[in-house]
Amino acid sequence: MKIEILDTTLRDGTQGAGVSFSPEDRINVIRALDALGISYIEAGMVTDDAGREFFDSLRDVRTESAKLCVFSPTAHPGVAAEKSDLLAGAAAAPVPCAVLYGKSSLYQVREVLRTTPEENLRMIRDSIRFLRSAGKEVLFDAEHFFDGYGDGPDYVLSVVDAALEAGASRVILCDTNGGMLPDVIGMTVERVVRSFPDIGIHCHNDMGMAVSGSVSAVLAGARQVQGTVSGIGERCGNANLNTLIPLLQLKLGFDCVGDRLRTLTPTVKYINEIANLTFDETEPFVGAYAFTHKAGTHIDGVKKDPRTFEHVDPESVGNLRNTVISELSGRAAVMDKIADLTGRKYDSAGKEDPRILEAIQALRKKEKNGYVYEQAEGSLALMIDRVMGEDVSHFDLLEFKVIAEDSKRAEEDGEVMKSSAMIKISVDGSDEIAAAEGNGPVNAMDRALRRALTRFYPEVSKMKLTDYRVRVIDSGATASSVRVLIESTDGVSVWRTVGVSTDIINASWQALRDSVEYMLSHVSQKS
Amino acid sequence: MKIEILDTTLRDGTQGAGVSFSPEDRINVIRALDALGISYIEAGMVTDDAGREFFDSLRDVRTESAKLCVFSPTAHPGVAAEKSDLLAGAAAAPVPCAVLYGKSSLYQVREVLRTTPEENLRMIRDSIRFLRSAGKEVLFDAEHFFDGYGDGPDYVLSVVDAALEAGASRVILCDTNGGMLPDVIGMTVERVVRSFPDIGIHCHNDMGMAVSGSVSAVLAGARQVQGTVSGIGERCGNANLNTLIPLLQLKLGFDCVGDRLRTLTPTVKYINEIANLTFDETEPFVGAYAFTHKAGTHIDGVKKDPRTFEHVDPESVGNLRNTVISELSGRAAVMDKIADLTGRKYDSAGKEDPRILEAIQALRKKEKNGYVYEQAEGSLALMIDRVMGEDVSHFDLLEFKVIAEDSKRAEEDGEVMKSSAMIKISVDGSDEIAAAEGNGPVNAMDRALRRALTRFYPEVSKMKLTDYRVRVIDSGATASSVRVLIESTDGVSVWRTVGVSTDIINASWQALRDSVEYMLSHVSQKS
Repeated sequence: MKIEILDTTLRDGTQGAGVSFSPEDRINVIRALDALGISYIEAGMVTDDAGREFFDSLRDVRTESAKLCVFSPTAHPGVAAEKSDLLAGAAAAPVPCAVLYGKSSLYQVREVLRTTPEENLRMIRDSIRFLRSAGKEVLFDAEHFFDGYGDGPDYVLSVVDAALEAGASRVILCDTNGGMLPDVIGMTVERVVRSFPDIGIHCHNDMGMAVSGSVSAVLAGARQVQGTVSGIGERCGNANLNTLIPLLQLKLGFDCVGDRLRTLTPTVKYINEIANLTFDETEPFVGAYAFTHKAGTHIDGVKKDPRTFEHVDPESVGNLRNTVISELSGRAAVMDKIADLTGRKYDSAGKEDPRILEAIQALRKKEKNGYVYEQAEGSLALMIDRVMGEDVSHFDLLEFKVIAEDSKRAEEDGEVMKSSAMIKISVDGSDEIAAAEGNGPVNAMDRALRRALTRFYPEVSKMKLTDYRVRVIDSGATASSVRVLIESTDGVSVWRTVGVSTDIINASWQALRDSVEYMLSHVSQKS
Repeated sequence: MKIEILDTTLRDGTQGAGVSFSPEDRINVIRALDALGISYIEAGMVTDDAGREFFDSLRDVRTESAKLCVFSPTAHPGVAAEKSDLLAGAAAAPVPCAVLYGKSSLYQVREVLRTTPEENLRMIRDSIRFLRSAGKEVLFDAEHFFDGYGDGPDYVLSVVDAALEAGASRVILCDTNGGMLPDVIGMTVERVVRSFPDIGIHCHNDMGMAVSGSVSAVLAGARQVQGTVSGIGERCGNANLNTLIPLLQLKLGFDCVGDRLRTLTPTVKYINEIANLTFDETEPFVGAYAFTHKAGTHIDGVKKDPRTFEHVDPESVGNLRNTVISELSGRAAVMDKIADLTGRKYDSAGKEDPRILEAIQALRKKEKNGYVYEQAEGSLALMIDRVMGEDVSHFDLLEFKVIAEDSKRAEEDGEVMKSSAMIKISVDGSDEIAAAEGNGPVNAMDRALRRALTRFYPEVSKMKLTDYRVRVIDSGATASSVRVLIESTDGVSVWRTVGVSTDIINASWQALRDSVEYMLSHVSQKS
């Protein structure tokens, strides 16, 4: 049976402390979730011009599996739906679906809305009809549903009835405060679906049971589950889709994303990276530790039969078992990766090729030092080339200096600080020195390097940096290491590289250098 | 009804990646858990001389509420209990209780132990009798109990029977692989307690439902719950006691730690600190965000009545309500926050005070430029001070230079790049110039600034940077802005500041400068 997944990372997720997405980030998240096979993606609200502009830009985004949704509250008490700015913004957004939220608990209607139960029903009906007349499919999020049900089912059920009768395709029962036990959620859903089968569930994690509450709701008959990547969201977060999707598919036999489940791990890690969140490697199913066996008896057990210490197959969710590197299946997976990354350049390398083992060992060592290659396949390809004995070095660095300076003017808080870089390189015995200024040391370094290289490799002038991210990887000290991820493009291809050092300039330099080397040895070869 | 809590942070917790405790750490954890009112504390295993020494040192540790436990496996197949080194070590440990673990699933007995079902029962009985004769209370952890039950209840129940008959005071049913649904756990426990009431539960979090599974077991009749602080442990961790204890007491009316619940939040944060783990502030009940409200409607709701968006009173678990200021907040929230942050310095300011409006406008403008204040309350307090006409400037910057340089050696990919900084400041007409090297430009800048300031403000020598984060906020160009977040401490307080610029050095400088200004105008004033 199909269970619809609605992802609200871009809406409820952004209510989590420290979470924000730029418009470009949002589009990247949408593309990743769509490729994963998510049914609905809540893209945000239209509260201002920036929101309007963002939704307008979605006109050009074609999705394969997902319906994009705009989020909106109902009209206010005493206000007609067509007079509500937020509803008008939602109606005008070029997406097929709207998620409307409204009150379903009498207590909330009286204490927060300060209106009558009848007016609340009117607001819900009018708002749904207004959005339906604008051509939208409407999902109705019934806030505080379970609290309301506890005060007597009559009013909450009349809200569900009103919403469906006005044209909502689903009513989603929300545990807005996250205070409901899974058993209570299950029993309540079971009773509601007797009269209204088109029900969904939206849980919060204030008791650490958002996943469990969602599962209880599905077992009781809910047909849609709302949640977020890694459970990010207001307070303690929402139901974690990274856990829920494999749990529903692999453990309970429902269908959420079909075969795409095998891409779950890289997808959710990528989205965490976009959000600049530290991914929790102990996450069920998708964390690196989920299938890491520490004790010798566990490793023995897993070798005899993975079922001894694993409750599902790691590959079913795109994760890997962390076992000894000489293990043959692990080696085959790395070989596949190598073939992929290098355009099958080393396809002839057999399983017994000692360079394969060397590549795996080099990879493990780099990862131990904080390098991550999931987001930096450019650097990974170069590392493999080097292990395979390929020459990917296109220049020698002879000298290098970056200066950032300022005087009293910096007090004005403006952009008056000045960075400059000087770089001396050598290509086949011929030296070149170049300098450049930039609005920041990395920008200056990038310009100076490309200026010095242009004489030898004119194609580097087409290349530019499109993203730059830094993350501290050991906390607790001024001498922490930082990891720099750089994204580059030549206007056609996009590639990403990584550098790690205690020195941000050094880490940036490593990533920058890989970026140029990757272009010269992989990208410009193709074109 | 009393539910015993057994904490296994010092044993199962240490099987989590990156977790280790020194003997002193262990004693500090034991003292903290005892003060919290935990019933049993598993202190570790006796596998070597260090373990023996550690347990000997526990002779001097008087506990108030907790029984200390030593952990041990049963004797091996074919080996008498008194010939087992681990059991002998456990028997000799000067603690009142032993937790013995053994197999209960036929599949595990045959595939992993490679012995007969009868011999396994013999091993369990003999081991328990041996520990009982050494004067220990014995708790028996029945590994893989639920997997075993699924293959037919006869053998697993004979294991429970054998353990109790041999003198165990409790048999703890373990979901060792973390693959059981809470409903299955609940139904199984319900059947087992019909014959054997002295049952406990031990869950793992491989499906994100360890808390929920434990709750189901308690509702079905289990009388002991095993778990760890923050759920640390092998793979995806154990049941999180930080969540379970308040859940069982406040939501279900069981008694775990009585009134001590009010000390839960500081206790678990302290233990995370001892373990040198980054505490997850989104944790249910005890995280800073558990009662943090970001959306304007939520903040309004909580002001009208906390029950609108809170499922329990934060003080009942030793936590605090918090609101964060962001583009989603209204004017009332900003005023409250101003009063909070400045120690009610501007409390007299009415809603109509033009400076309040100015502060909100300044905030909105800064946020539009990429500043975020929810993680940088130090910078927010300074911004408000400035708008309110307070002088928070403790020095003028006259000159500033940062140099990062390297020559051919950088090719080696090592940490040979060198950063240095020179800073000239003026305080009340008196100039000071200082320089410093660092393992990165920010580190060099930080050192040089504090060196220059020490003559005027000796207290800055106590201050240090504890975290540094960077992210690009407009992607798509080399001239993107970066946002730097810095966390600092003087050993007592912790504060965070923010800077934004196209230049990472400039953004770092802003955050660093705010960090020092905040200490001088807010932190050192208090002490």
